[in-house]
Amino acid sequence: MLIVMTVNATKEEVEQVKRHIEALGLTPHAIPGAQRVAIGITGNRDVLDPSLFENLPGVLEVIPVSHPYKLVSREVKPEDTVVWVGGVPVGGGHFAVMAGPCSVEGPEQTLTTAQAVKKAGAHILRGGAFKPRTSPYTFQGLGEPGLQILRDVSREVGMPTVSEALDERSLELVVEYCDMIQIGARNMQNFSLLRLAGKARKPVLLKRGMAATVEELLMAAEYLLAEGNYQVVLCERGIRTFTDHTRNTLDLAAVVAVQRLSHLPIIVDPSHGTGKRHKVVPLARAAAAVGADGLMIEVHHNPMQALSDRAQAIVPEELAQLMNQLPTILPLTGRHLAQAQSAAAAS
Amino acid sequence: MLIVMTVNATKEEVEQVKRHIEALGLTPHAIPGAQRVAIGITGNRDVLDPSLFENLPGVLEVIPVSHPYKLVSREVKPEDTVVWVGGVPVGGGHFAVMAGPCSVEGPEQTLTTAQAVKKAGAHILRGGAFKPRTSPYTFQGLGEPGLQILRDVSREVGMPTVSEALDERSLELVVEYCDMIQIGARNMQNFSLLRLAGKARKPVLLKRGMAATVEELLMAAEYLLAEGNYQVVLCERGIRTFTDHTRNTLDLAAVVAVQRLSHLPIIVDPSHGTGKRHKVVPLARAAAAVGADGLMIEVHHNPMQALSDRAQAIVPEELAQLMNQLPTILPLTGRHLAQAQSAAAAS
Amino acid sequence: MLIVMTVNATKEEVEQVKRHIEALGLTPHAIPGAQRVAIGITGNRDVLDPSLFENLPGVLEVIPVSHPYKLVSREVKPEDTVVWVGGVPVGGGHFAVMAGPCSVEGPEQTLTTAQAVKKAGAHILRGGAFKPRTSPYTFQGLGEPGLQILRDVSREVGMPTVSEALDERSLELVVEYCDMIQIGARNMQNFSLLRLAGKARKPVLLKRGMAATVEELLMAAEYLLAEGNYQVVLCERGIRTFTDHTRNTLDLAAVVAVQRLSHLPIIVDPSHGTGKRHKVVPLARAAAAVGADGLMIEVHHNPMQALSDRAQAIVPEELAQLMNQLPTILPLTGRHLAQAQSAAAAS
Amino acid sequence: MLIVMTVNATKEEVEQVKRHIEALGLTPHAIPGAQRVAIGITGNRDVLDPSLFENLPGVLEVIPVSHPYKLVSREVKPEDTVVWVGGVPVGGGHFAVMAGPCSVEGPEQTLTTAQAVKKAGAHILRGGAFKPRTSPYTFQGLGEPGLQILRDVSREVGMPTVSEALDERSLELVVEYCDMIQIGARNMQNFSLLRLAGKARKPVLLKRGMAATVEELLMAAEYLLAEGNYQVVLCERGIRTFTDHTRNTLDLAAVVAVQRLSHLPIIVDPSHGTGKRHKVVPLARAAAAVGADGLMIEVHHNPMQALSDRAQAIVPEELAQLMNQLPTILPLTGRHLAQAQSAAAAS
Repeated sequence: MLIVMTVNATKEEVEQVKRHIEALGLTPHAIPGAQRVAIGITGNRDVLDPSLFENLPGVLEVIPVSHPYKLVSREVKPEDTVVWVGGVPVGGGHFAVMAGPCSVEGPEQTLTTAQAVKKAGAHILRGGAFKPRTSPYTFQGLGEPGLQILRDVSREVGMPTVSEALDERSLELVVEYCDMIQIGARNMQNFSLLRLAGKARKPVLLKRGMAATVEELLMAAEYLLAEGNYQVVLCERGIRTFTDHTRNTLDLAAVVAVQRLSHLPIIVDPSHGTGKRHKVVPLARAAAAVGADGLMIEVHHNPMQALSDRAQAIVPEELAQLMNQLPTILPLTGRHLAQAQSAAAAS
Repeated sequence: MLIVMTVNATKEEVEQVKRHIEALGLTPHAIPGAQRVAIGITGNRDVLDPSLFENLPGVLEVIPVSHPYKLVSREVKPEDTVVWVGGVPVGGGHFAVMAGPCSVEGPEQTLTTAQAVKKAGAHILRGGAFKPRTSPYTFQGLGEPGLQILRDVSREVGMPTVSEALDERSLELVVEYCDMIQIGARNMQNFSLLRLAGKARKPVLLKRGMAATVEELLMAAEYLLAEGNYQVVLCERGIRTFTDHTRNTLDLAAVVAVQRLSHLPIIVDPSHGTGKRHKVVPLARAAAAVGADGLMIEVHHNPMQALSDRAQAIVPEELAQLMNQLPTILPLTGRHLAQAQSAAAAS
Repeated sequence: MLIVMTVNATKEEVEQVKRHIEALGLTPHAIPGAQRVAIGITGNRDVLDPSLFENLPGVLEVIPVSHPYKLVSREVKPEDTVVWVGGVPVGGGHFAVMAGPCSVEGPEQTLTTAQAVKKAGAHILRGGAFKPRTSPYTFQGLGEPGLQILRDVSREVGMPTVSEALDERSLELVVEYCDMIQIGARNMQNFSLLRLAGKARKPVLLKRGMAATVEELLMAAEYLLAEGNYQVVLCERGIRTFTDHTRNTLDLAAVVAVQRLSHLPIIVDPSHGTGKRHKVVPLARAAAAVGADGLMIEVHHNPMQALSDRAQAIVPEELAQLMNQLPTILPLTGRHLAQAQSAAAAS
Repeated sequence: MLIVMTVNATKEEVEQVKRHIEALGLTPHAIPGAQRVAIGITGNRDVLDPSLFENLPGVLEVIPVSHPYKLVSREVKPEDTVVWVGGVPVGGGHFAVMAGPCSVEGPEQTLTTAQAVKKAGAHILRGGAFKPRTSPYTFQGLGEPGLQILRDVSREVGMPTVSEALDERSLELVVEYCDMIQIGARNMQNFSLLRLAGKARKPVLLKRGMAATVEELLMAAEYLLAEGNYQVVLCERGIRTFTDHTRNTLDLAAVVAVQRLSHLPIIVDPSHGTGKRHKVVPLARAAAAVGADGLMIEVHHNPMQALSDRAQAIVPEELAQLMNQLPTILPLTGRHLAQAQSAAAAS
């Protein structure tokens, strides 16, 4: 932490700040400049709270230096983490595609779409049974029967599954029925849910909140790791900005930022990230080119009849075309399409 | 809903859209313009999903016309709702001040601050026992013992209380110990929690999410009313923008917007809304002048020793000065400081 | 400037950074922490560029400490600046109201509105003759004839005037015809125009850009002062955010931020700041309550027939009601309505 | 335009709105819904101003339907525009790379960097002689001597040039010395400058403003076309959001949005779009993969000694690696690296 004094700060004010630091058991380091004094602090084990100092007389500004995350940091673990979902590796060069309908609507729709995305080459089947919907009057998902359908279909087509959990009860069910727990953007800072997911024995897909900084995303992941769950995949899915040509603004530079700061894999969701069907494939390509570790894409064999988010679902043919293009792009970033292995071999 | 066709849309494309509308049991109204055709839709009971139409050939844009909220709407209930917290009215001209520490840290701190805010004229005692913290390594609140302290102090000083609930368990406890349930900004779209709070028999303070539009705030409140809880107070507490001189940007115009669209009272939290102690009182005055129905303010008798959010807590003397200024401002907006009544008289 | 090294930085990397600092004629101050080293720099007269260091091996982050503005800083000049517009003081406790039509449309409209705002108590007449319009096909202002009308009306009603300049030619004309030069939000970083206005012998009203930080606003003002023009009034007029209930988000906390950092007066424009007529008066009251040094408000005696920005113009009766409320609010912030003096007495 | 009435609007209020529409010479089309009436308007040649209606009694909302741009619209001209810069085509499948130093600092630096970017395969040489700098105290560019250096170097290495114009005088010089006029992000809504550039006989590179919507970018381009200059290339260079891990947030989905709405080519500037050297190449790849028509990249043979923006300049070796990767990506979007032709052959 660095404390910057005002130009007009008195010697006594500087001394008072130093005494304040020492009273906390820390060591002040005064750095006298031509115009003003700055005071560095050392000796702290944890990140200090700027508000400890910013209302002291003569203090102009308090600048945090350390970052508050630890376990997720690449400084702590330099090598990439590989997360195994069923037998599918994500990260460490393995590029995994999660695809499927926004919502599980019924056995036929789920099977039809699952077979299509499997055929196109996707690795993991996505499908929501618990839907966080802005309006209480819209379709909220099938609940546990939806998860049963997802599991049955997943066994039939041979793909591991990921589905969103919203609260304690749905989390227990997702852990029971699926291979990966999704924590959605609206729950990225639902710390109760994060703690529960941190205790679960299944990998977690953690989506970035619409107004979350990269640091906050990493801190949310830190909750999971602090509870003992190291199998975490992050997901960039668009942030909220003033722009109105898309539902969200996909922040692809966040992929590069996360990969420098953390060892966790990060994938991109261009479906929610744009909210527009015609933008999904171009942005998916861009995500691969920027160096993401995978994609999550909504696919529906008949988007016009989907019960939710139909504006952003692509059809299986579009997914197939995208999957055909990925092997051209991935080597440019040192990646390759993931190869599913048996769960036994993976462990 | 209005569907705007491209300039080059063919007659057949227009007909196809009309047939699509009719197939949904609705009525299309073509509006032929000089350059292009637009098609209005009537006959729907619920809000239509734009994605039903926006990928049809020849469609340029789909514009929603209706708003998806009902029970919270001033169109449905023109007169202001008055929410009673203990015996304190909020809304309908009654301006209520909620004040107290960010966190309940112990009996002495809570009592000292409570006596001070009571003396200054505040109506409702705030204090967190369950704290949503960005880092898993920082103080997370005292939990149930904190709520017990808050209840004991509230009885001693004679003020109703409000405290934040994060999940099912903490909600049950807040309902048991407090007079009002706070749903924080990070949980504004935690729909599971909203449903539970909607079933509770205590009034709810619903804070606007950092990236939530006014419409999304009203939809979140709609969840509460749809479950039968009509005692809802909204709270503007700052949104996330590019600005860096404050932690959030307090959007005071949202107060006016909400009051036009909804009958629910709306208060302002200038503590979180700015994150800076020296900005709290000026923005609190501004909130009163814009026409808010109350304030929520963090006060600590010794901010430097507070365990959380100390940068934004004001001291009791600052609160007292603010309370002295409010009676000058409030009549300009047709409001007055709330007068606490016995809970019996209120019901 | 503070350079933060990575946890794994080698001694040699630390030494290299120190040598780099010394090679620039500056002094490094290593601050060894438990986890990592930070290096403070002193000896620089000007603000250093972070990019001088941030790509050196072992460097995690470079944190600027000083602020790049000087002449506008309250550290340099602690007392408030009072800007005189004609005989009207702005700042230093004097609260000035600038009001009038968005555009000068003709002699009658301008005179009618001017008489009305004068009668309501406004101090300075605003009216645009050069309009920056998003579309090339909309009314762009009357140009020089508009300024002539504004001057004639100003003499008839006895009010000084302010009008916007867009480029070199219009700046010369505004200087010739008006008492104050307005630099609009879209030109806040038009540095050529700022330099010209800095050389002019008329006070300048500098509006904050839609995406400008407070620091960037102060730096734009620094351009004016650096050219010798110290008569500068800043103006908060709303920033661009994700919100859609107003055209812009009025950032009233910026008023407090500017007043701490700078001695220059700052006023608020609730007309552009909200873009909605029904929000103008509430936000104007809020601006007075937060401690602004004045207001700029669009008024039209018949908004429905205005040629530009009619959605946000209030009628003279609304202005009169606002002016009646201001004397109640202003003493709470140590301010009073400005009293026009003769220009001779003022100088 | 669509006018939405409130649920409680009276028949008389509906009639009044209709009369108001007719009084403007237009035709109202009432659409009676179950809950409320909406009124469509036809007969207008230009885009209507919503404020004509939104303060009428009973009006809830006014929704614009048409877009205000014409000449830039793909509805008017469906086929891609190809812009020729010197003999280099941009758009219509031709992917062009503009590279070079942020600022022209001297003959040697410019020549060294130009030779390196030419060798790497870049098509157009960029270099600033007039720099819009936030602070009046930092390097502002060499001015006309800088343009002379740029021209001499461009002749020596055989590359056309692009350089930024800030005002009338610098525009004249850029037209004289360079092959393409750059209008920077801060001047995107400097309408005086746009009009002058629209009259120039050189192609224009128009950068998106930091807070500009896609529609505003197209409207700014409309100014250029309306003055007769159809040789316009747009440029996405990052927008301002709450994120802090990059200087700006690169909005790659805007490329897709622009290409649907307009026939003009659009390139991407990942240097300003990220502000961080290590993010430039990944985002450049992503821009190619999303379907952009080119890139603008800052390159310096010795970034640490650059006089401006050194944090974001890549070295020639990085550019060369990127250029090697582009031919792999471009065919996926139906594009290819541009082939320079002689200017004569091009015309």
